[in-house]
Amino acid sequence: MLRIAVLGCGRIGQMHAANVARHPRATLAGVYDLHQPSADRVAGEQGVRAFASAADVFASSDVDAVLIATATPTHADYIELAIAAGKAVLCEKPIDLNLARVEACAAKIKGSALPIQLGFNRRYDPGHSAARNAMLAGEIGELHQVIITSRDPGIPPRAYLEAAGGLFRDMTIHDFDLARFMLGEEPVEVFAIGGALIDPALGAALNEVDSAMFILRTASGKQCHINNSRTAVYGYDQRVELMGSKGMLISDNRKPHEMRRYTATTTETAAPYQFFFLERYNEAFMAEIDGFVDCVEKGATPLASFEDGRRALILAEAAYLSMQQGRMVKVSEVKA
Amino acid sequence: MLRIAVLGCGRIGQMHAANVARHPRATLAGVYDLHQPSADRVAGEQGVRAFASAADVFASSDVDAVLIATATPTHADYIELAIAAGKAVLCEKPIDLNLARVEACAAKIKGSALPIQLGFNRRYDPGHSAARNAMLAGEIGELHQVIITSRDPGIPPRAYLEAAGGLFRDMTIHDFDLARFMLGEEPVEVFAIGGALIDPALGAALNEVDSAMFILRTASGKQCHINNSRTAVYGYDQRVELMGSKGMLISDNRKPHEMRRYTATTTETAAPYQFFFLERYNEAFMAEIDGFVDCVEKGATPLASFEDGRRALILAEAAYLSMQQGRMVKVSEVKA
Amino acid sequence: MLRIAVLGCGRIGQMHAANVARHPRATLAGVYDLHQPSADRVAGEQGVRAFASAADVFASSDVDAVLIATATPTHADYIELAIAAGKAVLCEKPIDLNLARVEACAAKIKGSALPIQLGFNRRYDPGHSAARNAMLAGEIGELHQVIITSRDPGIPPRAYLEAAGGLFRDMTIHDFDLARFMLGEEPVEVFAIGGALIDPALGAALNEVDSAMFILRTASGKQCHINNSRTAVYGYDQRVELMGSKGMLISDNRKPHEMRRYTATTTETAAPYQFFFLERYNEAFMAEIDGFVDCVEKGATPLASFEDGRRALILAEAAYLSMQQGRMVKVSEVKA
Amino acid sequence: MLRIAVLGCGRIGQMHAANVARHPRATLAGVYDLHQPSADRVAGEQGVRAFASAADVFASSDVDAVLIATATPTHADYIELAIAAGKAVLCEKPIDLNLARVEACAAKIKGSALPIQLGFNRRYDPGHSAARNAMLAGEIGELHQVIITSRDPGIPPRAYLEAAGGLFRDMTIHDFDLARFMLGEEPVEVFAIGGALIDPALGAALNEVDSAMFILRTASGKQCHINNSRTAVYGYDQRVELMGSKGMLISDNRKPHEMRRYTATTTETAAPYQFFFLERYNEAFMAEIDGFVDCVEKGATPLASFEDGRRALILAEAAYLSMQQGRMVKVSEVKA
Repeated sequence: MLRIAVLGCGRIGQMHAANVARHPRATLAGVYDLHQPSADRVAGEQGVRAFASAADVFASSDVDAVLIATATPTHADYIELAIAAGKAVLCEKPIDLNLARVEACAAKIKGSALPIQLGFNRRYDPGHSAARNAMLAGEIGELHQVIITSRDPGIPPRAYLEAAGGLFRDMTIHDFDLARFMLGEEPVEVFAIGGALIDPALGAALNEVDSAMFILRTASGKQCHINNSRTAVYGYDQRVELMGSKGMLISDNRKPHEMRRYTATTTETAAPYQFFFLERYNEAFMAEIDGFVDCVEKGATPLASFEDGRRALILAEAAYLSMQQGRMVKVSEVKA
Repeated sequence: MLRIAVLGCGRIGQMHAANVARHPRATLAGVYDLHQPSADRVAGEQGVRAFASAADVFASSDVDAVLIATATPTHADYIELAIAAGKAVLCEKPIDLNLARVEACAAKIKGSALPIQLGFNRRYDPGHSAARNAMLAGEIGELHQVIITSRDPGIPPRAYLEAAGGLFRDMTIHDFDLARFMLGEEPVEVFAIGGALIDPALGAALNEVDSAMFILRTASGKQCHINNSRTAVYGYDQRVELMGSKGMLISDNRKPHEMRRYTATTTETAAPYQFFFLERYNEAFMAEIDGFVDCVEKGATPLASFEDGRRALILAEAAYLSMQQGRMVKVSEVKA
Repeated sequence: MLRIAVLGCGRIGQMHAANVARHPRATLAGVYDLHQPSADRVAGEQGVRAFASAADVFASSDVDAVLIATATPTHADYIELAIAAGKAVLCEKPIDLNLARVEACAAKIKGSALPIQLGFNRRYDPGHSAARNAMLAGEIGELHQVIITSRDPGIPPRAYLEAAGGLFRDMTIHDFDLARFMLGEEPVEVFAIGGALIDPALGAALNEVDSAMFILRTASGKQCHINNSRTAVYGYDQRVELMGSKGMLISDNRKPHEMRRYTATTTETAAPYQFFFLERYNEAFMAEIDGFVDCVEKGATPLASFEDGRRALILAEAAYLSMQQGRMVKVSEVKA
Repeated sequence: MLRIAVLGCGRIGQMHAANVARHPRATLAGVYDLHQPSADRVAGEQGVRAFASAADVFASSDVDAVLIATATPTHADYIELAIAAGKAVLCEKPIDLNLARVEACAAKIKGSALPIQLGFNRRYDPGHSAARNAMLAGEIGELHQVIITSRDPGIPPRAYLEAAGGLFRDMTIHDFDLARFMLGEEPVEVFAIGGALIDPALGAALNEVDSAMFILRTASGKQCHINNSRTAVYGYDQRVELMGSKGMLISDNRKPHEMRRYTATTTETAAPYQFFFLERYNEAFMAEIDGFVDCVEKGATPLASFEDGRRALILAEAAYLSMQQGRMVKVSEVKA
């Protein structure tokens, strides 16, 4: 049983703590949060220890690995401390909002044999995985186009947006990673537009966009479109389409159940899509823990690595440059 | 070009007249209706002759075949007259509401080499056909169960019901035929229940049911369920399910288009199903004409024959007997 | 936290033990199995006590409630012992294969205020529940017809079939319960046919059917069809359709994910349905525990009661009588 | 009855001729084709006159309107001649491959009160129309994003491609028009990428692309993505998605029927989508004639006008400029 401590007891940390606790090959070794009462509450619910500090976690001989789900600015520090303390790491995305900090972190942990896995949960989604596996098995011949639709169910609070680092680094970063995962080769060019269509006043105040579209191209010419919105009122909209020379694969949205209504004016009406990432990617988050245990115990390579985190951030930077300049930007133009 | 005259200019006769007129291998040789103004109107629309009497149609040397879409009590007479006059026949179902009359008609036309096709349009539906063909190609192994859902969009006017001969002979007769068509062997037993759930007062007044369920069984044990209702408010509900040892085939409902709505409370909402048989079986009615032309011109065997019409009526009679006696009835118990 | 001991460590007992263990308002107080090594293994996995005997469970002051998942012939005894010991009961279906034994059990426990919940898990399925709730909210007006499709993914081993008590008591009993749950009033008449279409030799050897169809009718005339098969190769087929004067509701099958394939010869191809009850009714089994905790802790009425178990068995008996006699059987004809 | 002559008896001209012939408010006044035997054959099939020259058509007093379905380079000339002859015009897209020629034609016909309708058939598709009408009715609040998927079932012959004027002018022009139709305001910026992913050798030989992606933006910031491919092996792929502040509307693909297959490894498998535009937009082509008759007889404004044809071509030109320069291009940069 892999003993995993969870750092951060916010919404996503609580979910991870519960997942680790019920995982058949892991145990929850304790939790930590900067806000002690939050840690105490989650520790109580799970019947585990609340660490008094992150340092205590790293120092504990009862902890094999850490799952970092704290605020973004602490990620890189905690990765470095965990690796220094000999703990395997599963870290929520992004590594950092600043590319230079990411590269410094990379330099610091270089050479360590400890697994570092990034929290790109979508790579573990059963539907997305099935699509990728079918593609890798040759079912659609040569891949030509990837379409990623990714829309959140509602615009987050202003406080969240102020700390999030911008739509591309906070939200699209998942889609950039998924694009790389599906394309099977690196995008070399990025084009982006964005706008504050949902809340223009908020957009203006924060210099932030809430709706965006992207086009990526790989060296061999494969094409990828991503679209984002902060306000899919019909539920978290998460679709991936892979189109190739011999067919197409679509990983479509998931509903909470399959009940449909038929009336005098409508047919086949279903429930709204699963509300947000906790519901929609529930199985993916569990599979992510599973993959992490395999990395630590069997020496498997993380399906989502530190390097994947770094490259997704570079795509976000390229996208910002493109949006500013209104042109296709080469990924190689991005400097830390 | 096969010269087809249409007898009867009601709703279904008008549809047939238009279909014949635009069929690439047929011409509309004229129309007839007991109500002369109706015939005149349709004749005017199609630019063809309005016959003054049915006798004129049968006597005309410009008519190769007749499509009988008049009131049910005239069907058997017109079939006999048409055959006597050497005209091929495509006759709307049912042949007659009275089995003895059907058998007398059968005796009278016996020996004629002229094609007689029954208007069991559903046999020509692209979806139902595709299901049957896949089954015949062995895709589902041995057929075990057939489920037929057949519901009209609304209860007809009282006048229609009074003349229709009862739900089983008027509406279910299509489903009995479809059951035989799909089962690939004769049902030997029938069980039926019915009730006036939509309009109990009307049901009591007419001694008629508006909702019904059936179970049929063939000699080899294949099972078939049919359900009927006169009031599917969401549109004409026409489904066929074939379940076998190696899989299942479903011919599902058809919508007028594929536009779907997504809102804060619903997803994937589609339009109501195609309203009624004219819309839903539009392609089937055209294919029926096509099959008829093949019968006359190429000597093909009718996909739906006079004998199919007789057997469907026998199943209806067996169903009435079952409903009265609350027991499984052997088809062989039915006597003309 | 409600302390629940699980009796029976077979496939379904293991699943229940794991569900209880991870339920936020329950704890697994231990497990028992006639086969001690099975109990030990499950106890080890869950980190709980393995009881040496059922008597020990009933005698334990650390147990508030028992979940009975042992072999069917023990159910009634264990219910009686549990009630005598003051433990609340959640018992897998059926109560017993013998109606007289069920009635004797009912007499014995009469007057007890302890909750007894039956394991009719389908009542807790999110899709089926949503359909029923929409119907109860008046969305489809007056209910006219219920169609239940219930097909297992494959025929069970001969040993299972020999002990199962027959298809109607073992498998259809779930559908009889679901029919009652959805109809909202008691069926008063039952008609059934069955056949050994999948494995005629096995059917003959065991005098057992593997494919069946049913029609039920309530006092007010509502109609219900059930179809069963032991061999839906495309996955556990579990559908409920409610048709009424103002619309229709369908609780359809659930897939493991929503990935679809498009090729030169096919479109919209999805994965097989969730394999069997453990997967398909995963959420229902958890909700069942949830409901049980509410019954014990909040005095809620069980959504599926002992009486529901008794009535479902009566419908199974009526169905057997109908199959033997080829006629509609009144439920009131069934005597213990 | 509006007397319409069809110019051009190729694949699309034949279809239009048949549609006009069976339209209840129009008659086919004759056909013309540069290749006289083609015209003779279609005239024979439809039982109408074959004109010896286009001039004869324009000179004929039996012709009220012309439907121009000849080769693209003749469109502008025929429009001018028809208007000069006092005939209403329904002209296939594009008006011309050369924007200067389009503008010259516009200047020439300026001031004429005769209706000129462009063959942007997709505007008349029942699904696309239903989506637009729902949006105009406010069902999705403010429109934010439009996604158009438009993929042909296979790459055309080299000879076709050599004359077609390039993917953007030949194929995407339909999507540019549909984007304008759905956005409800003019795109002011265009970004495009393209590649020869299906047939790189052909692409190199013809300097042509077979796969492309586009992003358009309107003055108010609405975003639109278009993707194109010449090789959707699963059938003509024609989807439109409208996403707004209060919901989403999707006009999805249409299948020839609704039969689905279920096997041990797959479920819900449907037939390939309707093969190509003749099948998929069958109803749209009829509705287009209907709209044209309304324009001529009732003075209705064409749903797709000459100006719409001109603006779609301008977007194609902007897209080419963008593809060459790798930047967002302002539509106002395009000069004739």
